[in-house]
Amino acid sequence: MALTSFSLNARDGRARTGVISTPRGEIRTPAFMPVGTAATVKGMLPENVRATGADILLGNTYHLMLRPGAERIAKLGGLHKFMNWDRPILTDSGGFQVMSLSDLRKLTEKGVTFRSHVDGSKHELTPERSMEIQKHLGSDIVMAFDECPALPADRARLESSMQMSMRWAARSREAFGDRPGHMLFGIQQGGLEEDLRAESAKALINIGFDGYAVGGLAVGEGQEAMFACLDFAPEQLPVDKPRYLMGVGKPADIVGAVARGIDMMDCVLPSRSGRTGQAWTRRGQVNLRNARHADDPRPLDENCSCPCCRGYSRAYLHHVVRAKEMIAGTLLTWHNLHYYQELMSGMREAIAEQRFAAFQKSFELEFASGDIEPL
Amino acid sequence: MALTSFSLNARDGRARTGVISTPRGEIRTPAFMPVGTAATVKGMLPENVRATGADILLGNTYHLMLRPGAERIAKLGGLHKFMNWDRPILTDSGGFQVMSLSDLRKLTEKGVTFRSHVDGSKHELTPERSMEIQKHLGSDIVMAFDECPALPADRARLESSMQMSMRWAARSREAFGDRPGHMLFGIQQGGLEEDLRAESAKALINIGFDGYAVGGLAVGEGQEAMFACLDFAPEQLPVDKPRYLMGVGKPADIVGAVARGIDMMDCVLPSRSGRTGQAWTRRGQVNLRNARHADDPRPLDENCSCPCCRGYSRAYLHHVVRAKEMIAGTLLTWHNLHYYQELMSGMREAIAEQRFAAFQKSFELEFASGDIEPL
Repeated sequence: MALTSFSLNARDGRARTGVISTPRGEIRTPAFMPVGTAATVKGMLPENVRATGADILLGNTYHLMLRPGAERIAKLGGLHKFMNWDRPILTDSGGFQVMSLSDLRKLTEKGVTFRSHVDGSKHELTPERSMEIQKHLGSDIVMAFDECPALPADRARLESSMQMSMRWAARSREAFGDRPGHMLFGIQQGGLEEDLRAESAKALINIGFDGYAVGGLAVGEGQEAMFACLDFAPEQLPVDKPRYLMGVGKPADIVGAVARGIDMMDCVLPSRSGRTGQAWTRRGQVNLRNARHADDPRPLDENCSCPCCRGYSRAYLHHVVRAKEMIAGTLLTWHNLHYYQELMSGMREAIAEQRFAAFQKSFELEFASGDIEPL
Repeated sequence: MALTSFSLNARDGRARTGVISTPRGEIRTPAFMPVGTAATVKGMLPENVRATGADILLGNTYHLMLRPGAERIAKLGGLHKFMNWDRPILTDSGGFQVMSLSDLRKLTEKGVTFRSHVDGSKHELTPERSMEIQKHLGSDIVMAFDECPALPADRARLESSMQMSMRWAARSREAFGDRPGHMLFGIQQGGLEEDLRAESAKALINIGFDGYAVGGLAVGEGQEAMFACLDFAPEQLPVDKPRYLMGVGKPADIVGAVARGIDMMDCVLPSRSGRTGQAWTRRGQVNLRNARHADDPRPLDENCSCPCCRGYSRAYLHHVVRAKEMIAGTLLTWHNLHYYQELMSGMREAIAEQRFAAFQKSFELEFASGDIEPL
């Protein structure tokens, strides 16, 4: 029996629900993966991230290779032990963040050399080195090394970039080798072009992966363009493997992506928003910094069961946001992650019960209704 | 039956152990009170502060009156509900922090006017206003309003300041009135002068309080001078009431104060240290920022049962301190508060079992032994 598997339990329209099984635990899909950039989901303890309902975290190869270093983490027993999270971890390949964060990048067929944004030290990332780092970290789901061009980009650039990413995908597959209990995902590229996406999907399927990501989206193209691409891209990928949309997104992006056949997503938004006084609720976004909350004894969301909503008033949240207290980031991140996970579990149930379209309609209506009236 | 009480359960030398009972719960003495300046113990959730063993928190009148405001907190149901802590709270009178933090202070017999360090707004604190604010907050233990001169100060300044504080103590008592279930503590002043301390104690006893603080120490005089003062000051106060040493201190200060008959203390040190990468252990202070920890798989203290020591290596703590991650402040504050509370419970047991001198000796030896050797 394989140590990892993906089973689809139900489909409703193009939406799917299932389970990815790994030796470290099951990942219920559609899954939202909180981002633990530097071996911590900012503002949270790992047991509390788990309490929100998260089955899996995302770690960033780029950040971890620079600080504290992949070899160091390996010597300390791997990323799970290091950060005190014993459930599945997916790591990205580092490619995307090299492009967005590092200095003095130089891109060749071999890979990319760059300088660290932390201390200016020189590093190289190649498909082989990315596989090695992710092995050091002990990731359960490893991402192939790819290049992700910013959008908009002209077709020639998209095509040549996609083709290099496909050559890198083959090298990633080769370097990954045979690692029972660990999965390797390929990453589809091709911008918003249907034929390039199809060509990319074919190349990946030809190589063979345990799962497939839709890469190169959520890079500034806007929701409409992203959804238009998701109208065809996931369908080009194997039906019997998990499909991961990288770096998405706002609640409405997530629901729309699931409607289009996506199984996994990750985003810093719930935690980053939480640290800047922003909350996400069933009724949209709430800015706790706003003076309207200063005397409001009501919880952020009276129907939410998270510790933030059970224990604290909007007035308190407003106070601690204004006073820049750490508890503000912690409580709002907790709430946001809890809300995101409730949204995922709501979608999983709706798909299982063949009422996803109604769920989506009701989500959109409530989300658009806006925050409760001020007192 | 009185709603509040103090019972001494055992004495060993001058050290004492007992229980302060309030409608919101018991406070085991000697007690260490974590500081929740602005309605939060920085970096911690209140349930986790409780989990460290804290029976009572300290809140700061000065900070809370400026932001979010005492009347606002009262309207929201009081400080306990506001900050989600249902056990006892002691609030200081605001006097000390007006002197150390505010701008444009003007001190008269009536009280002090000043400008907020937050927004420059003008405020007045008098004994009557301090009592009113602490009532708005709903404090279980209210502190009389006093003036605390910085040390060193000449004797004439100390004497006149102490005498004004005693007149303010009488006005505080009068303004506090009769509030069953709430305690009012007087504050002894007089610098390091034994006769002034005695005069202050007599004045306070004459007014009559539910407890007595030794004020005006830990303001730069050094441990030796403080201990010399504590060799006589606590003994001048009633034996059957709790004695509170304000703003103390390092572990050795705390043990030395308990040895001299102190029952309660508070200090920002464990939480402030935690936010700057400093830990306190049985073997002294540890700076997690130091490179020696970068590859160290051992916990901060292998004999400590706190979540920081059970779940994380020194290498991880070093990493998150360097990366300025919020979890660094949370884990180290948690450990420090846990260590402080373990120290208190160790002292309470030792006093009850008439072996406090041996406990103190063993504490001092181990604390002086220094951190474990680097690997």
